[in-house]
Amino acid sequence: MLQVPYNIILGSQSPRRQELLRGLDVNFTVKVIDGLTENYPATLQGEAIPQFLAQQKADAYLNQLAPQDMLITADTIVWLDGIVYGKPSNETEAKTMLRALSGKTHDVITGVCVTTTKRQETFTAVSKVTFATFSDDEINYYIETYRPMDKAGSYGVQEWIGYIGVERIDGSFYNVMGLPVQRLYTLLKNWKE
Amino acid sequence: MLQVPYNIILGSQSPRRQELLRGLDVNFTVKVIDGLTENYPATLQGEAIPQFLAQQKADAYLNQLAPQDMLITADTIVWLDGIVYGKPSNETEAKTMLRALSGKTHDVITGVCVTTTKRQETFTAVSKVTFATFSDDEINYYIETYRPMDKAGSYGVQEWIGYIGVERIDGSFYNVMGLPVQRLYTLLKNWKE
Repeated sequence: MLQVPYNIILGSQSPRRQELLRGLDVNFTVKVIDGLTENYPATLQGEAIPQFLAQQKADAYLNQLAPQDMLITADTIVWLDGIVYGKPSNETEAKTMLRALSGKTHDVITGVCVTTTKRQETFTAVSKVTFATFSDDEINYYIETYRPMDKAGSYGVQEWIGYIGVERIDGSFYNVMGLPVQRLYTLLKNWKE
Repeated sequence: MLQVPYNIILGSQSPRRQELLRGLDVNFTVKVIDGLTENYPATLQGEAIPQFLAQQKADAYLNQLAPQDMLITADTIVWLDGIVYGKPSNETEAKTMLRALSGKTHDVITGVCVTTTKRQETFTAVSKVTFATFSDDEINYYIETYRPMDKAGSYGVQEWIGYIGVERIDGSFYNVMGLPVQRLYTLLKNWKE
């Protein structure tokens, strides 16, 4: 359906992002560059952080990009009360994160960067996620059964914790999974040159 | 994790509802009764309609229910400007429905009914879904490729049209898929007797 006159390259090893991009019924290849840094200036706040990181990921691909290539990179953070919740480094940290998010509404923010050799467009999408109050038993069960170590905020909305714990979402659900596909589709559909 | 001292029976042939209930990590069996009627009084409006239909479905199982059984039935409608959008009867009707929903915000309402031989609880969940404006090409592509004849409102939010077309959801995403699992989990967790 969507006709993009480029070879689309998804620069992400996230299986969720791959699944979400596939859902747009477009052809693409996945290209992962090892050893990307994910540091950002401490002065950045909220949306500026995943936007910076998505662009930083794109930078790492720039010298490999051919004129017919279109690169998609993205970064997702969980943001609550001025604190970034990224990927946990261990189970203890994962439990601490979920305890902090329990019973509250947090922002899930994804920065998306689309790059060709001629142009670069970035945007961010924000979804509000309201969590129920979790018991320690629920948090422990989830962490031990699902091991969400590769997930920002220590949870996957498409897993058990998302089923039992998300009271409501205000915004894009697929953004919470890792890629705001509706806005990405609109950007690609209207891409000039 | 969830311990319910009943044999849970899902009275629905919807593969989405089966998948969603599985996501709660509970054991259950599926029991489908053929030839259920899905009629409701014309005076009913909005939430009262799927609530009535979920109870009507439960009624059909009542004389087969054992004391250790817990039956879950549900019904989902799409509701916009006082009109119910149910399952389309053919492709033309599906296209008309999607044209009516295009560029607007509609309600997805699910009625859920949980029944044992001792007690019956029902609730409804409402999610607001905001659609982008669809082109006829997009509507035709979706209907012909995905054939959403078994879906209220002629769309599945977890399919291509949901990826390219849902600008935002306000409320439960899983409710839009057909079962508000977070509220169902809470109801089952707090079930007395």
